[in-house]
Amino acid sequence: MLVDGTPYRSLWMADGAVRIIDQRRLPGELVVVSLTSVEDVARAIREMWLRGAPLIGVAAAHGLALATTRDPSDGGIDRAAAMLLATRPTAVNLRWALDEMRAALAAVPPAARADVALAGAQAMADADVATCRAIGENGTSLLRDGVRVLTHCNAGWLATVDWGTALAPIYLAHQRGLGVHVWVSETRPRNQGVLTAWELGKAGVPYTLVADNACGHLLQQGMVDVVLVGADRIAAGGDVANKVGTYLKALAARAHGVPFYVAAPMSTIDFGITAGASIPIEERDAREVTERADIPVRNWAFDVTPASLVTGIVTERGVAPAEDLERLRR
Amino acid sequence: MLVDGTPYRSLWMADGAVRIIDQRRLPGELVVVSLTSVEDVARAIREMWLRGAPLIGVAAAHGLALATTRDPSDGGIDRAAAMLLATRPTAVNLRWALDEMRAALAAVPPAARADVALAGAQAMADADVATCRAIGENGTSLLRDGVRVLTHCNAGWLATVDWGTALAPIYLAHQRGLGVHVWVSETRPRNQGVLTAWELGKAGVPYTLVADNACGHLLQQGMVDVVLVGADRIAAGGDVANKVGTYLKALAARAHGVPFYVAAPMSTIDFGITAGASIPIEERDAREVTERADIPVRNWAFDVTPASLVTGIVTERGVAPAEDLERLRR
Repeated sequence: MLVDGTPYRSLWMADGAVRIIDQRRLPGELVVVSLTSVEDVARAIREMWLRGAPLIGVAAAHGLALATTRDPSDGGIDRAAAMLLATRPTAVNLRWALDEMRAALAAVPPAARADVALAGAQAMADADVATCRAIGENGTSLLRDGVRVLTHCNAGWLATVDWGTALAPIYLAHQRGLGVHVWVSETRPRNQGVLTAWELGKAGVPYTLVADNACGHLLQQGMVDVVLVGADRIAAGGDVANKVGTYLKALAARAHGVPFYVAAPMSTIDFGITAGASIPIEERDAREVTERADIPVRNWAFDVTPASLVTGIVTERGVAPAEDLERLRR
Repeated sequence: MLVDGTPYRSLWMADGAVRIIDQRRLPGELVVVSLTSVEDVARAIREMWLRGAPLIGVAAAHGLALATTRDPSDGGIDRAAAMLLATRPTAVNLRWALDEMRAALAAVPPAARADVALAGAQAMADADVATCRAIGENGTSLLRDGVRVLTHCNAGWLATVDWGTALAPIYLAHQRGLGVHVWVSETRPRNQGVLTAWELGKAGVPYTLVADNACGHLLQQGMVDVVLVGADRIAAGGDVANKVGTYLKALAARAHGVPFYVAAPMSTIDFGITAGASIPIEERDAREVTERADIPVRNWAFDVTPASLVTGIVTERGVAPAEDLERLRR
């Protein structure tokens, strides 16, 4: 996407290093950092210099590529993959990306692996862009002129390589001249809502930031036409793990008859598990909630919205009811 | 309540001034400030040096008493009352307290009004303490040993003169040896959850702070036995205006069959309006949500939970179904 006239992705290769936007510094300043080792990439994922399930997957693939340039042995790849897999437990795209990469690397001799890994990671980044663009195309069917969308967290281009998932339909609709207004929930404790605010502002899409607590009032007062969020993992039965607080919005949407859609690539669907109860929910550091060490805190990063509250899942293959994801599988 | 061995109320008179705890400085430090004029009191209410519907009412009564010492004429009282009434639109206790004071003052000549006003304000403070204590007694019937309570915002002794509303039953149960654990939601954008955390910590009640967004997960996972919150205004039909985000918790409680109780003095019930839709919802400064002036914000301070989601209202006169508040009226 364009930022003040310059095209950006959230991640790219340059001079043998992985370049990313340090999302902890946004919206204050746009800072690009270079990651030169798998350890660098693992740290960037764990400490949320970058985040978003699709981007985490692509970043992990690039981390594995960096590792392969140093040690292309089976053991080296195993160690690097294990380090990357341990960074974030909830997003399934991370495991999916590593599995894809390892399958490709297992098929070639160690001497050829560095080139294959780099090409594979870059192809995965390009595929993510195409996937998100397709999600955008499929999702625009949900938006009419004048629509008021509520979103949560950041499921924009910063959460993917480009375009985003939940925001992709909004960007396309806006580019095509439809009036779209976006309610952006702050998304405590990490405040990813300000990343969404920054993205929308740069793209010229009208938006308003609200506290997460205000979303019940918004839906009750008829100020929202559709809720559109991303996902970190979707169970085969349609339950959706996404940023903590998503479930409360889904409950409020249902209470007021507002459709609730989830936009995500097929790689976010975990056909290996049936129900959301099987999805591990990451707990993060108490200091994300308060810096005061004398206050006891629990800090779950995600929650699970049951399929029964989800109007539909928007993927690159089309829109399906949450309870009928099999139809998207080929 | 005791703070490190010293008994405190949230407001008292000393040397002709109103003394309050500056709640903006908590939990970092306990700072007592003196308010010497009605303008001081109005500013303290408007800028939330103190907050909580019952305490706002008592503070306004004291502000009117300060005004009366300077100008006991009908016009002076009118101007002071109007200034105080304009500070916060949602809490009905403010208007109730001013109406009570003005009725008492109208019955005596101007020369006697300063003494009557001061005595009236102090009697109102003492009555608030007795009322909250009675709410506590009535509310303990809802708590059994080992109960896990979820609360929102601060409805503790800092929100009243002493004891609190939603926290009063918890304090009494704890003092009587019942095991109680409290989930405290952060309560963005003003973070009054940390006031509740501070209160509970000083009283030795076990608690855990969570982001507002985590409350759906808590209820879904069966980690809450009862939700107990305060109120800023209750319509005669039982709809409850309380701190924004309350409604989302009520929806989640209902979804998981967890009882949802509201604790408030009778003065919070506005028998003059039938439905919550008639309650004005205060909008506050955008800077409460973000300091960034380039981000558009809406910031509603309250929301309305419909009576149908409220299991019961706990008052000093007993516990009643939200849809049958008439039974509490005498």
